[in-house]
Amino acid sequence: MKPKINTERLWSRMMRMAEIGATEKGGSNRVALTPEDKQGRDLFVQWCKELGCKIQIDNMGNIFAIRPGQDNSLLPISCGSHLDTQPRGGKFDGVYGVLAGVEIFECLNENDIQTRAPLQICVWTNEEGARFPPPMLSSGVYAGSYELDYAYNRVDADGIRLEDALKDIGYDGPIACGSNKMGAFLEVHIEQGPILEAEKKVIGVVTKAQGARWYRIHFNGQDAHTGTTPMPARKDSLLAASHAIVEIEKIALRHGPDAVATVGRIENEPNSHNTIAGNTTITVDMRNPSEEVLDQMQHELHSAAQQAASATRCEVEVEIISNTPAVHFDERCLELIEQNTQELGLSYKKMISGAGHDACHLAKVTPTAMIFIPCEEGISHNESEYAAPEDLANGAQVLLGALLDLAQPVSV
Amino acid sequence: MKPKINTERLWSRMMRMAEIGATEKGGSNRVALTPEDKQGRDLFVQWCKELGCKIQIDNMGNIFAIRPGQDNSLLPISCGSHLDTQPRGGKFDGVYGVLAGVEIFECLNENDIQTRAPLQICVWTNEEGARFPPPMLSSGVYAGSYELDYAYNRVDADGIRLEDALKDIGYDGPIACGSNKMGAFLEVHIEQGPILEAEKKVIGVVTKAQGARWYRIHFNGQDAHTGTTPMPARKDSLLAASHAIVEIEKIALRHGPDAVATVGRIENEPNSHNTIAGNTTITVDMRNPSEEVLDQMQHELHSAAQQAASATRCEVEVEIISNTPAVHFDERCLELIEQNTQELGLSYKKMISGAGHDACHLAKVTPTAMIFIPCEEGISHNESEYAAPEDLANGAQVLLGALLDLAQPVSV
Repeated sequence: MKPKINTERLWSRMMRMAEIGATEKGGSNRVALTPEDKQGRDLFVQWCKELGCKIQIDNMGNIFAIRPGQDNSLLPISCGSHLDTQPRGGKFDGVYGVLAGVEIFECLNENDIQTRAPLQICVWTNEEGARFPPPMLSSGVYAGSYELDYAYNRVDADGIRLEDALKDIGYDGPIACGSNKMGAFLEVHIEQGPILEAEKKVIGVVTKAQGARWYRIHFNGQDAHTGTTPMPARKDSLLAASHAIVEIEKIALRHGPDAVATVGRIENEPNSHNTIAGNTTITVDMRNPSEEVLDQMQHELHSAAQQAASATRCEVEVEIISNTPAVHFDERCLELIEQNTQELGLSYKKMISGAGHDACHLAKVTPTAMIFIPCEEGISHNESEYAAPEDLANGAQVLLGALLDLAQPVSV
Repeated sequence: MKPKINTERLWSRMMRMAEIGATEKGGSNRVALTPEDKQGRDLFVQWCKELGCKIQIDNMGNIFAIRPGQDNSLLPISCGSHLDTQPRGGKFDGVYGVLAGVEIFECLNENDIQTRAPLQICVWTNEEGARFPPPMLSSGVYAGSYELDYAYNRVDADGIRLEDALKDIGYDGPIACGSNKMGAFLEVHIEQGPILEAEKKVIGVVTKAQGARWYRIHFNGQDAHTGTTPMPARKDSLLAASHAIVEIEKIALRHGPDAVATVGRIENEPNSHNTIAGNTTITVDMRNPSEEVLDQMQHELHSAAQQAASATRCEVEVEIISNTPAVHFDERCLELIEQNTQELGLSYKKMISGAGHDACHLAKVTPTAMIFIPCEEGISHNESEYAAPEDLANGAQVLLGALLDLAQPVSV
């Protein structure tokens, strides 16, 4: 019989953490490596020490809170996420995955449960990438996706290097990032999308994370007078971009429920009321769990861009600006998550993560999986982000079960 | 037998004027009421005085150079345009209509031709509106479209009032704007569009000026994560705007060759690569010579906006921000222009002005018409604007003929 998560205690720790960097509209502002981020880290470290954990910090500032097992030669079974937020972020994104771990440790302590392998909570530095792009930087260094030097030389808007910011808050630890291996990594997170809420499911068993490809498309036409230039003589780059945007939605719809395609950004010149636009640039974000489908979508994107340009007598250039491969999470970890969810009698859905998470990098170097819980209206990266206490407890309960199965409980 | 324009002399005056405020790329920068505008005005006044003209200036800075007739109780038969330019304007827009008048006066002097009614060249202040919006401000005051106080209180980007800028260059004259009536007004201008060049016509007989209606359309959706938000759950305001832009082109195409519709400006928020846009605003410029057709186009615009919003689950608001009625030029003036063009054996096309001109205001208070000449590739409001010397001479020749017919030459 696995012990029961204390819903109240988990919620109360979530609210306590949210006070650090609290924003006017009820969100949190703990951007990576700021004094607020340091305060959040300090509070986490204090809580874990109180629960008897050993704290390790690596040279990317990643924090590892270890709850010793019976056999500490075994690799620690890990959970975790991040404590940094967007500048106007919510109380749940990332924080939940960390504090679910703290609640699990306290719950195990209360019930005198020891595990064969040690357990571990990871706090990954700069997951949001809001101050130091790209996002998921430190889990990326841990997994070998990025070089340490690359990460150290990221700069914020004021020209401050990440390495210096890390030293400033005193979280530049002695362990070489990536050298402390782990036996598994499970990340519980709010969905940041509307699917679980819409389908009235309590748990998302996250089998894959979508591959994401980003493109920049530039349409080149000719500035001209809106009054004197007949329609057939125009080279209207904003019209070209609009044709492309309409077609890009259709590409996603053709590839079924898992495909998404978005144009979020547009730059238009001269952007004047009475001048036909001559230069318009859009960025495209296409995601799918299958690389083959992404190849096909990319092919269709090139056609759509070309057709939009031809229809408007413009020229077009398509450039790929980033390519994040799809991730397939670990079968055994997923089985344990599903099994624990079923044992708890919770409704669930096997689903795909549309967003990137630290777990996406970790999957390259250790058995990894994710658990999602619903969040209100799918809203995230927003001060009004909300998840209900019972949903937070359910996710933590599933995580506790899967961690125990992996780490093997022993009788005391 | 009407005297012949001196092509060389007209061209040489055009090039001399273009030296004032000359830009690096071969254009002119004589924005209204700047020191460069004053220099241009001074040069014009000097030329006209040398030709024996009487100079009058009104309290909007409009300049009237009068060549006395046999009967100076008759209202002067006028031509003219403007000397101010866009900040990176060309050598021909406006300037041509003024200097064609100067060449005509010199040509009449050379040939000792006197007219019954006096002749007059008008230079209208701030036609471009680049520094003091709206454009065509002073011809608008002359014609009673704007109040003098309204015009005086227009401010530039530095907060300088038009009245003060006018005093600074010493062109605040004693005549009440609009009090000095005229017998007719003919404006020769570069087409600023590609039609004459494309159809290989030398003269445009401008029968009408299009009415123009400007709109602002705001689409309100919801910011959301590009990765986690399924396509059917989105409220993508940029997608909504794109649907509308594609439909707005179709509205113009449905209403035949004289209708144009343009979205030149777009504002998108948060305009981020990986966030679905929640707020997008576009501006629409629709033009047609018929108010009835414009009413129909407006009706279709509302439908298109509504459908674009429905298709994307967004909300929409359509607002009309300006409404410039269509202008029908004077029948008798048009007949004289056409007749003179035919007598000269020049190819011509009856056409509609897509742009606004001082003549559009003047048409309210005096018999008015316009003559167009081709300009290279229809390019205007651009330093590379170009019109050929022989085309400039042809336009001036037609203007000379029509002015003489209106003012009635008398033998000397």
